[in-house]
Amino acid sequence: MTGMKILTERELRRIVPLDREAVACVEEAFHALATKAVAMPPILRLDIPEHRGEVDVKTAYVPGLDGFAIKISPGFFDNPKIGLPSTNGMMVLLSSRTGLVQALLLDNGYLTDVRTAAAGAVAAKHLSREDACVAAIFGAGVQARLQLEALTLVRPIREARLWARDAAKAEATAQALSEKLGFPAKAVIDPKAAVTGADIIVTTTPAEAPILKAEWLQPGQHVTAMGSDAEHKNELDPQAILRGTYVADSLKQTRRLGELHHAIAAGLVTQDAEFAEIGEVIAGVKAGRTTAEEITIADLTGTGIQDTAIATLAVGQANAADAGTTFEN
Amino acid sequence: MTGMKILTERELRRIVPLDREAVACVEEAFHALATKAVAMPPILRLDIPEHRGEVDVKTAYVPGLDGFAIKISPGFFDNPKIGLPSTNGMMVLLSSRTGLVQALLLDNGYLTDVRTAAAGAVAAKHLSREDACVAAIFGAGVQARLQLEALTLVRPIREARLWARDAAKAEATAQALSEKLGFPAKAVIDPKAAVTGADIIVTTTPAEAPILKAEWLQPGQHVTAMGSDAEHKNELDPQAILRGTYVADSLKQTRRLGELHHAIAAGLVTQDAEFAEIGEVIAGVKAGRTTAEEITIADLTGTGIQDTAIATLAVGQANAADAGTTFEN
Repeated sequence: MTGMKILTERELRRIVPLDREAVACVEEAFHALATKAVAMPPILRLDIPEHRGEVDVKTAYVPGLDGFAIKISPGFFDNPKIGLPSTNGMMVLLSSRTGLVQALLLDNGYLTDVRTAAAGAVAAKHLSREDACVAAIFGAGVQARLQLEALTLVRPIREARLWARDAAKAEATAQALSEKLGFPAKAVIDPKAAVTGADIIVTTTPAEAPILKAEWLQPGQHVTAMGSDAEHKNELDPQAILRGTYVADSLKQTRRLGELHHAIAAGLVTQDAEFAEIGEVIAGVKAGRTTAEEITIADLTGTGIQDTAIATLAVGQANAADAGTTFEN
Repeated sequence: MTGMKILTERELRRIVPLDREAVACVEEAFHALATKAVAMPPILRLDIPEHRGEVDVKTAYVPGLDGFAIKISPGFFDNPKIGLPSTNGMMVLLSSRTGLVQALLLDNGYLTDVRTAAAGAVAAKHLSREDACVAAIFGAGVQARLQLEALTLVRPIREARLWARDAAKAEATAQALSEKLGFPAKAVIDPKAAVTGADIIVTTTPAEAPILKAEWLQPGQHVTAMGSDAEHKNELDPQAILRGTYVADSLKQTRRLGELHHAIAAGLVTQDAEFAEIGEVIAGVKAGRTTAEEITIADLTGTGIQDTAIATLAVGQANAADAGTTFEN
């Protein structure tokens, strides 16, 4: 008989908010990726085309951590027709010493939302100008909201512009964000106007063709593109990568799944061109932003190491708060 | 809020015994693999060398089934030193329509044991002579026991010989099997003597060098090699594959992980040589045994489709028996 902790989405929302601690936990994870013998195998992916479904399974082991997460992320794109969210899923935390299941995190994708937004904050913290105060967000979904919230944890944001294909949704999201964050967030119709004068631009869409043009970018801006996590997704004009200092979350992944993939496909960048990873910038072994005028670009595809980090944080918090249900097997 | 069923190892042992139903379920799964557009991505594998640990994640989707399983199989080989089994793990059954988690099967590897033994029965049913009555088992672990039990479900076994590197363990296992199955099971010291006169030989060891020599094989015998599920494992003398009709559970896997892999490495078989898969034999699209004299060889590496099949069976049985705990999330 061994005991495992089961945590529900409701409990996880309470004990793992998107806060500085979550950002620090993801920052440490990227640092480990650059400095330790992290094992992060390729994503396992299963497609179920009959039901417009797909499942990704990610994992990563960080030497020194007591546990590692295996994350199951389904996306079923007909779900909204029957009143269900497209994405859900869960994480399993296993002991690094014995392989025993320590915890089942029934988060329906919540922890992924948090670790993804936290990665946006980490990118902004290490690549944007310290005085960055105007944010432009592309998209109007959960990540549009969380990415803006995450920026406020690391930069003195005082104004935001939102652009989305669905103007009404952009309007509603902007209004909700203004109320929550206490500074003006405005929906804009023209994506170029959103970018002009912004300090940080975050793209959060499932776009399959560029929505951000290279020529819109201005000196000193930082761009985080976090929407693409699959070969067919593409938010940035591939030329944008030539205009700025490019940083990947995982080069192995962005060459295949990220914005870099499209720059390679367009012949603008060679397959084996070397760029910094965000962990290397955090660790100080590669340069990020070196001047106030340069443009920086973070390409985030989402990594298993973030899942291991946030799952470890969640179980630590749950133990501290005595939250969750212990299940004997 | 959605409900999911949680089933413990104890419940699963009760509702999913190794019986004809389990064998039929795995037989159907292999049939589907040969006749339907099954999606079975490559195994995700994470290694944790610091703790002699490894984790495999397997999955497969069978068109028409309501659910698909994702199986997490850790193996941590220092566990016995602290009184824990080396292998454990669990399965998650997700809806094929929505991706929602339907059930968590906290089986600690039990369902894998059952579906693996059931595959041995399926191989014997379709490849061994119908009058096969003498079995030789190599190994003395859980699969040695279960493979022999599984054979009795499909063939009129009335005698068994057991050989294992650890003679005392072979003796104890043989005695337990004699008592359980009601026919003589004898431990033998000489592996060749175990093979001589046997109708079915099943190898169930983690051997890394051949333990069954090709020249020991006699006309009419059937061999199932089920121990190898990794590149470095090898039970059969590669020459054995040339002596018999070779059938794989999944050619894509046996070329990389099975006995076939070593025959290819030895230059005896080309990388792209075509062989039958067990599902094709079941479906009648490729030949298995065609004469009483021929030698047949089944190479079983373990497939995600067996996991999906047994998990689906388990949840069906649990629903029928109203077993398990429903957890609201």
